[in-house]
Amino acid sequence: MNIKTIAPKSGASFKIKKGEYLKVICPDGEQVSDMVAFNADNTSEYMFNGKTFDYEESIFLTKGNSLYSNESNKMFEIIEDTCGTHDYLLAPCCNRTMEHFYQDFSDGPSCRKNLYKNLKRYDISNNHIPVAFNIFMNVPVSKNGAISVEPPLAKPGDYIILQAHMDCIVALTACSAASSNNGSYKPIQFQIRSKLK
Amino acid sequence: MNIKTIAPKSGASFKIKKGEYLKVICPDGEQVSDMVAFNADNTSEYMFNGKTFDYEESIFLTKGNSLYSNESNKMFEIIEDTCGTHDYLLAPCCNRTMEHFYQDFSDGPSCRKNLYKNLKRYDISNNHIPVAFNIFMNVPVSKNGAISVEPPLAKPGDYIILQAHMDCIVALTACSAASSNNGSYKPIQFQIRSKLK
Repeated sequence: MNIKTIAPKSGASFKIKKGEYLKVICPDGEQVSDMVAFNADNTSEYMFNGKTFDYEESIFLTKGNSLYSNESNKMFEIIEDTCGTHDYLLAPCCNRTMEHFYQDFSDGPSCRKNLYKNLKRYDISNNHIPVAFNIFMNVPVSKNGAISVEPPLAKPGDYIILQAHMDCIVALTACSAASSNNGSYKPIQFQIRSKLK
Repeated sequence: MNIKTIAPKSGASFKIKKGEYLKVICPDGEQVSDMVAFNADNTSEYMFNGKTFDYEESIFLTKGNSLYSNESNKMFEIIEDTCGTHDYLLAPCCNRTMEHFYQDFSDGPSCRKNLYKNLKRYDISNNHIPVAFNIFMNVPVSKNGAISVEPPLAKPGDYIILQAHMDCIVALTACSAASSNNGSYKPIQFQIRSKLK
């Protein structure tokens, strides 16, 4: 498949088959992509931060780590990762997040809305959108548990490659929240490959 | 309401009204209680770690912090907390967790099973059980993100009091996973109060 571009503040969804590779690219650097995934045959099974933290015994995930479902099945394995910094703690930004952090009371774009907009064709409802694996998002955690959202460390061209361990429905965004992408609102690119190289 | 006891390796569910207080007690020390909550009028709204981390800007939660729903509404506020150490990262233990960590392939008790068993009367399905707020669970996070499950710090009689900010369906457990409660498998107690004192 050719490389596809997700325009700034938008999203995309697609199916990926077991064994295939998903490459997510930060073409211009400093951008975040929220990723959610559902079992293509049973969307009540979905990628779940709690089980991932359980089995990986880490909140920071990179090459060698896997992303697990609420049913404890491996959904994706991280095969390559040129950035190394991602977040799996924070929920996709939504209208209420924008109100809370930016006093933005408009009904503008948000990752939750972009995920939902792209997932409704698979009958996935808005309130079934879980915590996303926030690719390239930089959320350091201090010793006392305090978290902050810092500019992404991804440089232009940085990428992550994930191999699917089951047939999945996936949605990705190019993030809409200023603090997550240092106010740069850049695009994201992705590619599905049958072979790693 | 009188104090109720949750027997070791079991659970309970109940409704609580907006404004009421839920006291969860560790009567003998060193035990964990997994807590999940749903909007009593619309169970697709539920207590959600991602939005809680967003708004509290911390992964460790104690007196003064609130627990938020997937719809960004405050569900509970922590009013008192004599222990101070709880976890909101890890998913309720299940058969697969027991297999992974303890090579226990029996179909024995688990928090997920005990939550589901007590929630099915409210038509909440097994795969809708979210990450629980793991009261008294001791999960330190190191600088590099590594997490470990350590013996609970709760002493006999330690408690937490949460005030409901909406009418909720709540389920609680007395934890069934050895590492979470240092192999002690003790009971948990709870009480619903209309007044704090």
